[in-house]
Amino acid sequence: MNVTPKGFTFKAVSAGIRYKGRPDLALIVSDRPAAAAAVFTTNRVQAAPVKLSKRRVARGEARAIVVNAGNANACTGPRGREDARAMADITGAALGLKSRDVLVASTGVIGEPLPMDRVSQGILGAALAAEGTLDDLADSIRTTDTVRKVANRRIRIGGKRVHLAGVAKGSGMIAPNMATMLAFVVTDAAVRSNVLDEIFRKAADRSFNRITVDGDCSTNDTAMILANGAAGHRPLGRRSPELSRFEKALGEILSDLSRMIARDGEGARHLIEVEVRGAVNAVDAEKSARAIADSLLVKTAVTGRDANWGRIVCAAGYSGARIDEEKVDVLMNRVKIVSRGRPTGRDEEAAEAMSADTVRITLNLRLGKASAEVLTCDLTEKYIEINAEYRS
Amino acid sequence: MNVTPKGFTFKAVSAGIRYKGRPDLALIVSDRPAAAAAVFTTNRVQAAPVKLSKRRVARGEARAIVVNAGNANACTGPRGREDARAMADITGAALGLKSRDVLVASTGVIGEPLPMDRVSQGILGAALAAEGTLDDLADSIRTTDTVRKVANRRIRIGGKRVHLAGVAKGSGMIAPNMATMLAFVVTDAAVRSNVLDEIFRKAADRSFNRITVDGDCSTNDTAMILANGAAGHRPLGRRSPELSRFEKALGEILSDLSRMIARDGEGARHLIEVEVRGAVNAVDAEKSARAIADSLLVKTAVTGRDANWGRIVCAAGYSGARIDEEKVDVLMNRVKIVSRGRPTGRDEEAAEAMSADTVRITLNLRLGKASAEVLTCDLTEKYIEINAEYRS
Repeated sequence: MNVTPKGFTFKAVSAGIRYKGRPDLALIVSDRPAAAAAVFTTNRVQAAPVKLSKRRVARGEARAIVVNAGNANACTGPRGREDARAMADITGAALGLKSRDVLVASTGVIGEPLPMDRVSQGILGAALAAEGTLDDLADSIRTTDTVRKVANRRIRIGGKRVHLAGVAKGSGMIAPNMATMLAFVVTDAAVRSNVLDEIFRKAADRSFNRITVDGDCSTNDTAMILANGAAGHRPLGRRSPELSRFEKALGEILSDLSRMIARDGEGARHLIEVEVRGAVNAVDAEKSARAIADSLLVKTAVTGRDANWGRIVCAAGYSGARIDEEKVDVLMNRVKIVSRGRPTGRDEEAAEAMSADTVRITLNLRLGKASAEVLTCDLTEKYIEINAEYRS
Repeated sequence: MNVTPKGFTFKAVSAGIRYKGRPDLALIVSDRPAAAAAVFTTNRVQAAPVKLSKRRVARGEARAIVVNAGNANACTGPRGREDARAMADITGAALGLKSRDVLVASTGVIGEPLPMDRVSQGILGAALAAEGTLDDLADSIRTTDTVRKVANRRIRIGGKRVHLAGVAKGSGMIAPNMATMLAFVVTDAAVRSNVLDEIFRKAADRSFNRITVDGDCSTNDTAMILANGAAGHRPLGRRSPELSRFEKALGEILSDLSRMIARDGEGARHLIEVEVRGAVNAVDAEKSARAIADSLLVKTAVTGRDANWGRIVCAAGYSGARIDEEKVDVLMNRVKIVSRGRPTGRDEEAAEAMSADTVRITLNLRLGKASAEVLTCDLTEKYIEINAEYRS
């Protein structure tokens, strides 16, 4: 089911920015002003398009997004800032919009200037190109992604049919220099921009910020949403009774995309869901879940289908979260391997359960009531192969 | 040159704790009371021997250390505490010492109780065994270490010849469950125990705490020093003019051992020295150096001899340290690849320089005067192979 929100068009072209013969530049256009919100990388080094879009989205409104793959326009100095600006200017001119209504995102090599001749040609070509689908859009932002990442939801608000759709690329840090997670959500719901900003940040925090592949956080990570109101219902405000329905659908979309990203981690064979329960507080729960998800030893244990609870408890221990190792339960895909600090001897059974595509690690600290979940993937030789790109 | 400090004996035996036919249990014995100091893992989950030794070393004095490989005695509950205590008791009885004068260290599998019959037999056997060398001691604590790690220094204090010697094992986190960095330093210098504690902590902080292999910090990490004064000079106090000479030699020993550990990281082909200069303050310098050293993308770039400065600047960026990417210099083994934020085009030359055993990454932030260095190693398919220990 590929439900496209009303009033949006997608255009994707092969601009030849880095690769030949594959789409690498796309436009997302709303036929009317849309409420806009976005979250960006927390890296102190931010690519030029991130800086530009951050300023522009602060107005809470936009009409179009221009995105390219193959070059991140990061660490490119004053020229990079001009280029990001020029991408918006050209898009605006080609579409008959004001430049300030255009948001920009880029992904690809760091530290090389954009080939602006190809980028401009690409933008003009895209503006004239036939309308594409969400799938085309999703494909145009892929780098080493092995699967297309698209999610949809359809809900009813005020008696009207409302569509939400999202596309994403990335696996935390991707192939050499392909250092970005990008996500774009479009919806024909009508949402006040301050409310949209609030719920989008919350949803991103619960999804994109809970995935980790190699712990690296890029210069270009960007997630944006446009809500153009074409569905025709009364705009959702903070007190609208139907806001929660919209929020739930949005949360599901981001959550779907996050799982696809984590599962598609470079070289990954397993999606790993790390769940920590019984923590003293939310901070401890998240700290320990994240330490377990980031531990190379835990990841490689999953790769080797080794129900290695020592590594899990050890990672929770160095996370700084409170833990009493004599109280913990550890489960691997529901097989309890440690009960109140003691091994149960069910390692073989757990190892078998770990042959599933998804491995769920549950650590119950039994100290409090807080819980957290972080998604990641296992670490295989393939990751090294992809990222070492041997020169020798 | 293998200079053994006076008044110390080393005994190593094969106790068969986990492996057959290789030394896995050792005693370090001083023939007189020695000042003692130690630093331990900061993991909240601490093995039984860590807890025991931490209490005991607080007195500032000890006579012997008993150490075993093959089993970490971690996450072993009340029984583990009794076992650690029993190791000290048996060692004390076998050597005619008080149990409280014996420190204990263990490394190996987590979560399995010690085979105490073999451990006791091993201790008794070791007490009766012929005197071994520092090399024997170093070998007995090896797990997946591919090289023996020993360092020596000889200095003069108050006209007397003074020896320092150290052994170590580990590479941050070692093979499946072999989760420990251990180091033991012995010296015939006479040092007041409060001073010994102070300078040992400082030296450890500048060496062991500046290496990172996979970022994991084990339940058993332990570094201990015994100074028995057999050299015969007047004890060094805080104001002794010759203290700095001792401190320097001690620093060099820990530094040598640290480099050996980092270089011997599992599957590593390169030692990586990450140097950050020009940081606003020491905290920023260390944060960014550590983020670069821990980045899988930086490690794999070194594996592939790719002078990938984007990954370096990106890691510094997400460390939280202040950075202006348009000001930075980046050098790879002295080849400047980025100058004030601009690529110099010397990537090929840098890639060649990266074929050396040691790859030095220098990031000059050009914002202040603080600097820091962190050692690590590259990440190869071999690491995955070692740590995944495929069951399938």
